[in-house]
Amino acid sequence: MTPLRLALVPGEPAGVGPELCVRLVQTARSYGMTAFGDPQTLRAAADALKLPLHLVAPEDDQGRAGELALHPIPNAVDVAFGQPAPANAHAVIDALHTAAAHCLRGDCHGLVTGPVHKAVINDGGIPYTGTTELLAEQARCGVVMMLANPTMRVALATTHLPLREVADAITPASLSATLRTVHAALRTDFGIDQPRIAVLGLNPHAGEAGHLGHEEIAVIEPVLAVLRGEGMSLEGPLPADTAFLPGRLKRYDAVLAMYHDQGLPVLKFSGFEHAVNITLGLPYPRVAVDHGTALDLAGKGTADPSSLIAAAATCARMARARTAIMP
Amino acid sequence: MTPLRLALVPGEPAGVGPELCVRLVQTARSYGMTAFGDPQTLRAAADALKLPLHLVAPEDDQGRAGELALHPIPNAVDVAFGQPAPANAHAVIDALHTAAAHCLRGDCHGLVTGPVHKAVINDGGIPYTGTTELLAEQARCGVVMMLANPTMRVALATTHLPLREVADAITPASLSATLRTVHAALRTDFGIDQPRIAVLGLNPHAGEAGHLGHEEIAVIEPVLAVLRGEGMSLEGPLPADTAFLPGRLKRYDAVLAMYHDQGLPVLKFSGFEHAVNITLGLPYPRVAVDHGTALDLAGKGTADPSSLIAAAATCARMARARTAIMP
Repeated sequence: MTPLRLALVPGEPAGVGPELCVRLVQTARSYGMTAFGDPQTLRAAADALKLPLHLVAPEDDQGRAGELALHPIPNAVDVAFGQPAPANAHAVIDALHTAAAHCLRGDCHGLVTGPVHKAVINDGGIPYTGTTELLAEQARCGVVMMLANPTMRVALATTHLPLREVADAITPASLSATLRTVHAALRTDFGIDQPRIAVLGLNPHAGEAGHLGHEEIAVIEPVLAVLRGEGMSLEGPLPADTAFLPGRLKRYDAVLAMYHDQGLPVLKFSGFEHAVNITLGLPYPRVAVDHGTALDLAGKGTADPSSLIAAAATCARMARARTAIMP
Repeated sequence: MTPLRLALVPGEPAGVGPELCVRLVQTARSYGMTAFGDPQTLRAAADALKLPLHLVAPEDDQGRAGELALHPIPNAVDVAFGQPAPANAHAVIDALHTAAAHCLRGDCHGLVTGPVHKAVINDGGIPYTGTTELLAEQARCGVVMMLANPTMRVALATTHLPLREVADAITPASLSATLRTVHAALRTDFGIDQPRIAVLGLNPHAGEAGHLGHEEIAVIEPVLAVLRGEGMSLEGPLPADTAFLPGRLKRYDAVLAMYHDQGLPVLKFSGFEHAVNITLGLPYPRVAVDHGTALDLAGKGTADPSSLIAAAATCARMARARTAIMP
């Protein structure tokens, strides 16, 4: 097979993304990696951190420490760390689209992304709600957001919605599609033959038999019954407050939370530094850092690269699991 | 001052409450404690666990190991562990009311409660939504539920509501009252002079400046501004997923979550065994176990008494803090 190659997008050039990429390549890698971004910004980040950075063409990439293959996508204007320029929004989005296109074509086998600054992209005249949404649209497929760290994997049935819109957004069709995506990804990308998924209720105490809401009875339970009939191993709907007890978590390969703040506070509490944001359902594995652009830290060399390092390692593992199944 | 005395209610007689009370009194105490419940059930629990239990009159209570002062409230029918009898619902509720009356009169200085089985009480013909609500009604005051363990304190702006009702239930009046109650209790019951409270947003990312919901701008921020003007130290509205990061938690004496599943999964994950459920706003401190009746474990001697032990210790500390301020 083709040697494994990941695509790497630093994200917002004025944030910590470029310097985290520099830190990421300070150790040798067993796989190829091509960055999609502005060469000047990456060099400036390396200079600020006083670390070596040898930008090479992808065909010359040996994965050596301090070496990074680059597909250059120049910024429109020079970057000052900590001061994002809306004029560079097009370059940021172009980098994401180009890297994803390489993954869709099979030139790269997975996508690793740094943090993007949503408001700056919009200020630059590009409607943008998130990288996950951008990649889903480009690939024309439905996706599921899953956050993971060494303690747990938490997938979300809804993501960035006002709380009052959550209940109506969870329909039998959307929930079935989400669970099918999570189940398939746990098999394909994580190599788990018979994944065990804990499905949370929407309401407190999972509705307490209808006393605290009816969505468990009307929507969630019927969907679980159908999918169990197809052979999926699904527990739930479970009360969210006890589903994450450490002794219970061990029983599950992933937890499906119904909404953002039901699942993510506990995930981030249990290990923020090593948490990554995984997009399930794309034709390629995509893993992002689980933090923002941290503009106040950019260029200072103090930003913690743990999440980007974990994202690259996770993406490489997922890509290997996929290629092992689908030659 | 009067020596400190707590009221103890075992709760559902067929559950683990009675045996947890027996375990609780196996070590000597520096304060008095009067149980309100059925003597037969407590003796049966002690027999099942092969532990000593000397039931005495409150005036003879020396707080010795194995000794428990009892205000008897007999069950209507005999109890088999694991099989709750609706006929005993009146005795369970009577015990709560009587113990609370002792606290309201000042004969006891705090209330510690074991788990009650909601459906059994209702099956017994008594409308009952929860002990917290029962105590609030009896004392005619507004209360706030706060869960606590050694890692964090989490108070709730709403408790047992269907998710789709949460947004409308948080009004400027309700949120102000909740924050005043939490602030006052942290001062009075926890001895914290200038409490620092983290207030979560209602929506993911705390609404992201209105992009993900408007309740932060329309309701939460104005309330915080008013209360800050009165001298309260309030941070927020904060995104729930990062407010609980261990490094940040250290800055706060309590977190106010807007709803049940936003705050409790992370609290229970961080230490379920030692978690307790505190009712703030009553004329006396009340602390409950943070678990259910565990009917499947009752009478077997395997139930973990950590939560009840923590509840009694917390209640005694709170009662001492109150009496130190209000002689």
